[in-house]
Amino acid sequence: KYFLTLYFQVPEHAELAWILGCLTNVPRVLRLPQWKMKRASQNNEGTVGLLTYPVLQAADILLYKSTHVPVGEDQVLHLELAQDIAQHFNKKYGEFFPVPKAILSTTKKIKSLRDPTVKMSKSDPQKLATVNIADSPDEIVLKFRKAVTDFTSEVTYDPDGRPGVSNLVSIHAAVTGLSIKEVLHQSAGLDTAHYKMVVAESVIQKFAPIRNEIKKLQEDKSHLIKVLEDGAQKAKELAAPIYQEIRRLVGFQ
Amino acid sequence: KYFLTLYFQVPEHAELAWILGCLTNVPRVLRLPQWKMKRASQNNEGTVGLLTYPVLQAADILLYKSTHVPVGEDQVLHLELAQDIAQHFNKKYGEFFPVPKAILSTTKKIKSLRDPTVKMSKSDPQKLATVNIADSPDEIVLKFRKAVTDFTSEVTYDPDGRPGVSNLVSIHAAVTGLSIKEVLHQSAGLDTAHYKMVVAESVIQKFAPIRNEIKKLQEDKSHLIKVLEDGAQKAKELAAPIYQEIRRLVGFQ
Repeated sequence: KYFLTLYFQVPEHAELAWILGCLTNVPRVLRLPQWKMKRASQNNEGTVGLLTYPVLQAADILLYKSTHVPVGEDQVLHLELAQDIAQHFNKKYGEFFPVPKAILSTTKKIKSLRDPTVKMSKSDPQKLATVNIADSPDEIVLKFRKAVTDFTSEVTYDPDGRPGVSNLVSIHAAVTGLSIKEVLHQSAGLDTAHYKMVVAESVIQKFAPIRNEIKKLQEDKSHLIKVLEDGAQKAKELAAPIYQEIRRLVGFQ
Repeated sequence: KYFLTLYFQVPEHAELAWILGCLTNVPRVLRLPQWKMKRASQNNEGTVGLLTYPVLQAADILLYKSTHVPVGEDQVLHLELAQDIAQHFNKKYGEFFPVPKAILSTTKKIKSLRDPTVKMSKSDPQKLATVNIADSPDEIVLKFRKAVTDFTSEVTYDPDGRPGVSNLVSIHAAVTGLSIKEVLHQSAGLDTAHYKMVVAESVIQKFAPIRNEIKKLQEDKSHLIKVLEDGAQKAKELAAPIYQEIRRLVGFQ
């Protein structure tokens, strides 16, 4: 079961984050690599919101007594923080939160198409570095055509020696659901220029139905608003009794 | 006009604190002396809640578009943070918050009765160090009788040279509304042992009506709950339209 919602349609998120912040030591969040990395891009200043974001994430998880959380590699440490906070709370106020388990994605981290040594990221200022789920087929073809590879034309998988081509192979495997081995077998004999177009085509096919659904939603704003409102309603119904119990446990009542 | 309320009867406080935290740089709050001091008493670890408490205070002030805030000396830097956050918000989202002004208390900081070099504090573990507003007359007499002074019996005002007696003079002036000079004039010829009883008596007289009111409220729990509920209701009525406007300005709607 799932539902969509937006932050701040459910005020309990911010309130629970405040309570959990009182159970989290500052040195612990100052050590998180995401904070260090992102702070660097804010002139090393970094806001309180950025520093304490992992605590809000913990609240997002624990407010629903979640038992399993799908996470990417870069979020594993943040989930560990949520686990520690849950255990700290349980120790202090009595067994209450399940300690949430990670569901790790089998797909490896996808790299930037412009620099295969760094992660592909929505916030990358280089427009050609990142494929968005709502990109048009033309945009997707352009981005893969310009993808940085190397001067060897063969298609092989060697993330350390040939990060660019290997990234294409990873993407190809991820969108087709095939293994790396199967993908390499299929692509035997292609040069990288042709292979880029094969990968682009498989990405276009994977994204097409999602892109169509996004377009439909965007054209029907009232439907979109209803989906979000229904989601918020369901979230509130789940969260409210849990948060009331938390308030009682920590003595806010 | 005033009303009493409790944190977390108004969920907008925590939500606004989150938004303001995104406008506050971490080095700024790490530099605040209260954080450094209180962190030291938590094995230098210090929680996220403690570090970001001044941001919650800023939310408490700004959520009501407050124009004037009564502050003690130790809170001046926290009010400055609220002022800076208000200005930062106004610059980013358009003129919205009045920049709140400090109303500084004219009474000097009251010192501990057991150690007149440190502030009197509710959280002091030495029970005799602090006079509570609900103390019985007997307790107040005992605390002043045991107050640390020095070996000179004359009553003079010299905070650096004679901090103990000077603290008694300050308290005497604060509760009677007289100036230091008037208080000294009245006490001419008394020795410190007798003077302690004079000060105790003036504190008892000042606190008696407050103590009676507290007792009445404690005996009538349903009245107390009603007062708090009415306060929360008034607070919500004030805060809700302001917070809705903030959400609109920052793009949460």
